[in-house]
Amino acid sequence: MSAETTRTTIADGTVRDTPLRDLYQDWSALIATGKLDMRLFRSLFDEWHKPTVEPEGVTYKEESVGGVPGIWALPVDADPARVLIFLHGGGFAVGSAASHRKLAAHLAKAARARAFVADYRLAPEHQHPAQVDDGIAIFSALLAAGVDARNISTVGDSAGANLALAVPLALRERGLPLPGHVVALSPWLDMENQGGTLFTHTAGDALNKGPELMEMMIQGVLGDHTSRRHPLANPLYADFAGFPPLYIDVGGAESLLDHATRLADRAQEAGVDVTLEIAEGQQHVYPLLAGRDDEVDAEIARIGTWLNT
Amino acid sequence: MSAETTRTTIADGTVRDTPLRDLYQDWSALIATGKLDMRLFRSLFDEWHKPTVEPEGVTYKEESVGGVPGIWALPVDADPARVLIFLHGGGFAVGSAASHRKLAAHLAKAARARAFVADYRLAPEHQHPAQVDDGIAIFSALLAAGVDARNISTVGDSAGANLALAVPLALRERGLPLPGHVVALSPWLDMENQGGTLFTHTAGDALNKGPELMEMMIQGVLGDHTSRRHPLANPLYADFAGFPPLYIDVGGAESLLDHATRLADRAQEAGVDVTLEIAEGQQHVYPLLAGRDDEVDAEIARIGTWLNT
Repeated sequence: MSAETTRTTIADGTVRDTPLRDLYQDWSALIATGKLDMRLFRSLFDEWHKPTVEPEGVTYKEESVGGVPGIWALPVDADPARVLIFLHGGGFAVGSAASHRKLAAHLAKAARARAFVADYRLAPEHQHPAQVDDGIAIFSALLAAGVDARNISTVGDSAGANLALAVPLALRERGLPLPGHVVALSPWLDMENQGGTLFTHTAGDALNKGPELMEMMIQGVLGDHTSRRHPLANPLYADFAGFPPLYIDVGGAESLLDHATRLADRAQEAGVDVTLEIAEGQQHVYPLLAGRDDEVDAEIARIGTWLNT
Repeated sequence: MSAETTRTTIADGTVRDTPLRDLYQDWSALIATGKLDMRLFRSLFDEWHKPTVEPEGVTYKEESVGGVPGIWALPVDADPARVLIFLHGGGFAVGSAASHRKLAAHLAKAARARAFVADYRLAPEHQHPAQVDDGIAIFSALLAAGVDARNISTVGDSAGANLALAVPLALRERGLPLPGHVVALSPWLDMENQGGTLFTHTAGDALNKGPELMEMMIQGVLGDHTSRRHPLANPLYADFAGFPPLYIDVGGAESLLDHATRLADRAQEAGVDVTLEIAEGQQHVYPLLAGRDDEVDAEIARIGTWLNT
């Protein structure tokens, strides 16, 4: 599906009632109390695993790859030569390999690959570019272990999708080989914290209801020392020439919707092979509903097929 | 090891520094702020999985058994005829199948059995005996599915260990077959909330530092309608005649230490085959350190061997 054919659903206004929306509404009510500090934010966002059903036929193994701790998701029928580097969301500050283990495993099963779910260093303790550096360290360690770069994909959601883009951009800067494919689920890109849907889609988005929470996360990861237009922090300012095939997936009810569409435009202008999927009425990182929703499972199967093309 | 030979370590006073102790100290500081309601307690206690390393060679499957949702932990080399019913801790009010999935999987691997990690109904929304009834429903469904009662074990930690005892006691009352083995990890039993080590071991115990938190949980699960001496709520008042072989494991630094030793005495007096293990300097439910600590892994291997005798 091309960017053009799906773009028509942007203004739809539908909001689907799902367990992920329920979770976000519950979180938003708790966040609104003002009682949560970063410690409790992290506890809360580790509940992100809850909407995802345990995928069958996958084993796990904790390991450090390139010095970065994480969890391998190992589908029993995976081709070990094919690897997904999964970079979780959470504003660079919250979320974990544990919160995204099941989502990564569903995608790995669909792609018949193994997935390394990284516990990269988090902000504000570790600021940009620590997260990008961790992704590069994982990628480099896989190459050193004999994995073909073309058989590696970077995959991420939200802030992790930002990293799934920034890592190949940084690899290109260094003259290193690039991954074969890149998947960006509900990418969070605009560190200037602007954009139309951030203001037009706040009613339907159960989590990102305005710029405040994101502003806190941006300040945490970039501080005052990194420009909010730095192309490795805000890939909307990157040059995508020579970038790998890119699959972008976003929920139609998201206030971050136009991060995805602006990314699609920018990458297509640079000649990248872009697939953009907008799921009507869905929330931020709706593939977390994997195992619980037939339409979501069909989309995960499509991503798996795409990763093998 | 018999109850007598290990009893000597009770007064030792050693406290080991472990990631589980670190987690409990962190929780205790947060609980002391008074900011946490039951919703945030549940979020926090789902972090209980963190000290446990992902066991290798285990797949998972979500399923309801006897109407009770939960997660099957399926070691790749398990004998499917052998089943552990794992009942998680958390004062009957917090904790989940997710928080104890990895611990149950380590035990299942050691026993070469499959484990059903139950999301039984929680208090205060569901009071006693809902939790015991859920355990009975799981056991009965397994029998109906053709599993031999002697190949089923009830296993639990803390409040879940209380249930691992109460379920066979309730089955016996109803004239139903009993499980082949019972494992109680750091059992929480004394609903009268008294006992010597609750007051002598508060300095070393990083979580249960006095009766207050437990009093809240007792009120939540028993309310005013169930006696705190009801033998299916407080198995220290149960008659253990005819009870299956019982393995009791407890940390030497726990304020709940004498729940374990009183249980051992009571069961031995009734002629039960009791094994009591007291791990010097360890905290509440220290087997949650599985995969991270050689001594803990050796203990889990011993439990696995014992379950096969």
